[in-house]
Amino acid sequence: MRDVNGSTASEPTPAMEAPHGPARGRMPGTVGALGEFGLIRELTSRLTTTPAVRIGPGDDAAVVAAPDRRVVASTDILLEGRHFRRDWSTAYDVGRKAAAQNLADIAAMGAVPTALLLGLIVPVDLPANWPTELMDGIRDEAQVAASAVVGGDVVRGDSIAVSITALGDLRNREPVTRSGARAGDVVAVTGWLGWSAAGHAVLSRGFRSPRAFVEAHRRPEPPYHAGPAAAGLGATAMTDVSDGLVADLGHIAEASKVRIDIRSADLDVPAQMADIGQAVGVDPLQWVLTGGEDHAIVATFPREQKLPARWRVIGSVQGASARPQVTVDGAPWANAGGWDHFSPDADR
Amino acid sequence: MRDVNGSTASEPTPAMEAPHGPARGRMPGTVGALGEFGLIRELTSRLTTTPAVRIGPGDDAAVVAAPDRRVVASTDILLEGRHFRRDWSTAYDVGRKAAAQNLADIAAMGAVPTALLLGLIVPVDLPANWPTELMDGIRDEAQVAASAVVGGDVVRGDSIAVSITALGDLRNREPVTRSGARAGDVVAVTGWLGWSAAGHAVLSRGFRSPRAFVEAHRRPEPPYHAGPAAAGLGATAMTDVSDGLVADLGHIAEASKVRIDIRSADLDVPAQMADIGQAVGVDPLQWVLTGGEDHAIVATFPREQKLPARWRVIGSVQGASARPQVTVDGAPWANAGGWDHFSPDADR
Repeated sequence: MRDVNGSTASEPTPAMEAPHGPARGRMPGTVGALGEFGLIRELTSRLTTTPAVRIGPGDDAAVVAAPDRRVVASTDILLEGRHFRRDWSTAYDVGRKAAAQNLADIAAMGAVPTALLLGLIVPVDLPANWPTELMDGIRDEAQVAASAVVGGDVVRGDSIAVSITALGDLRNREPVTRSGARAGDVVAVTGWLGWSAAGHAVLSRGFRSPRAFVEAHRRPEPPYHAGPAAAGLGATAMTDVSDGLVADLGHIAEASKVRIDIRSADLDVPAQMADIGQAVGVDPLQWVLTGGEDHAIVATFPREQKLPARWRVIGSVQGASARPQVTVDGAPWANAGGWDHFSPDADR
Repeated sequence: MRDVNGSTASEPTPAMEAPHGPARGRMPGTVGALGEFGLIRELTSRLTTTPAVRIGPGDDAAVVAAPDRRVVASTDILLEGRHFRRDWSTAYDVGRKAAAQNLADIAAMGAVPTALLLGLIVPVDLPANWPTELMDGIRDEAQVAASAVVGGDVVRGDSIAVSITALGDLRNREPVTRSGARAGDVVAVTGWLGWSAAGHAVLSRGFRSPRAFVEAHRRPEPPYHAGPAAAGLGATAMTDVSDGLVADLGHIAEASKVRIDIRSADLDVPAQMADIGQAVGVDPLQWVLTGGEDHAIVATFPREQKLPARWRVIGSVQGASARPQVTVDGAPWANAGGWDHFSPDADR
């Protein structure tokens, strides 16, 4: 983006920019002081690579191995104030979380993550260590999943946005979609459920402990390996739990045209989570059933399939239904989902 | 993103949102009125597909063919007020341009585009036809390059941002990077140079014609086919012209550790562009040498390589240099590039 006068934006609209003079734009320790090329240098210098990365950052595009002859791809955006708060989460944790959210989508297709691309919007007055620590977090989470950041774009804007695209490889297994659940299948889950929501409840009441739940909120730990493993075990449908168990199983029920029943007695409500629930006056089952962001993986399997120890069978596919739905112990769960993120009520 | 109360943002910061009540949030004809699911439905309903798209939008991730066993990937962000203006460009044109910019990066590696993913930030009070027309533009530009939109994410924010990731396939050719230019190679270009910059000069002075240049600014036409073709012809280095010819050849010179000389007499300055230059008091060569956004493709080739008619030889690789640079007729070109997008001067 460059016009004939050498200025950057092809179509600048001064009114949209925060008013600032040179002094503020170059405020020491800010991304403005670092400059675009300085920031890109800082960000790329922190990256690691893997054998799958044939060409990393710095050219027109990256080149990543796709041995399966198919590539799995997903994009998610996190906005400051909407998906994270700088006073609750460090840049590093935001990076871990943003990467985790995207890597979990790849795993939930039954694929092995290979690469991430980062689209980053930053204000000029943002402290320069914020994007670099964000990148450290993204890099480290990518490494947890044996993948790497291979490219991206950084632009200057009014508030922070982190857009990540994750790529993955199916390793000769068929992708597991949301639409393959069949009557008689069992529903099983692996990973954490409700921990992030319980941590959020703690934080939003001004507390910083119990640490385990606050940490779970700041930095999810999706069971990446479980996605491809489930595909290998013959999972008929799969998704990661990003909107809440009932809501995400609802996506499977809808896509597969089935009913799904969850048995609440089979859900794991840790004693400490129950304690938090009692302290804040919330049924902890609500966190387990509707809390998102832990990125557990939930899948349906043929009933006869033996599952590894870390999978917990929590329900069953009830049969084809013209009116797909998810029930808990046979009844609809109140406030289960379908929340409209664009609703004027969404910020209350 | 969902908390235990069913509200959307896990960590809402009301101060960051424009103040609005239900009436404004649901203003008829806005994306708020359409709602998140309504908008996603509207957007995905407009999409087309290709045989390369194995799984399109609607699941945890998309699956796209990668017959070469490698995938080429690139991400770019466009922001309102920085990269486009709603009073200068229609949503449709912004979509065409955003897609073109990313598809050109794929072509410039020598690859054939296969798929796009869209990350979109929209304010709730944005007219609902803006994102749908944007999507029409992205879809149509994807189709020009025989590719398709396969997925994405839509979130609500304060201003419009369009983040696109493009994927491509190398079709068993080696990627053409920026680092392979060798002494004795010729420099050749195909596509348009300076047209977008001339169109921008016209628009920024309040005029709407000549149409051809205004159109070139609103909607670039990168020569997508030329990228893979150049790879087939043995191009030693290649990039698309997004920052300006001198600046982008500078990236090749730097990566290849060579000097590059452009012969200005070999550049095409159309008569009508010269007329605009005279009218607005700008040397049109400045547009041709430093104007970005047309996404021409520039490459270096072995001198003996015969090039198709639409490639124009405009210079030569002068030889290895510890101090890489690009010259025009043997001398540095003033104001040639290296512009820092984060500079406080960048909005002048």
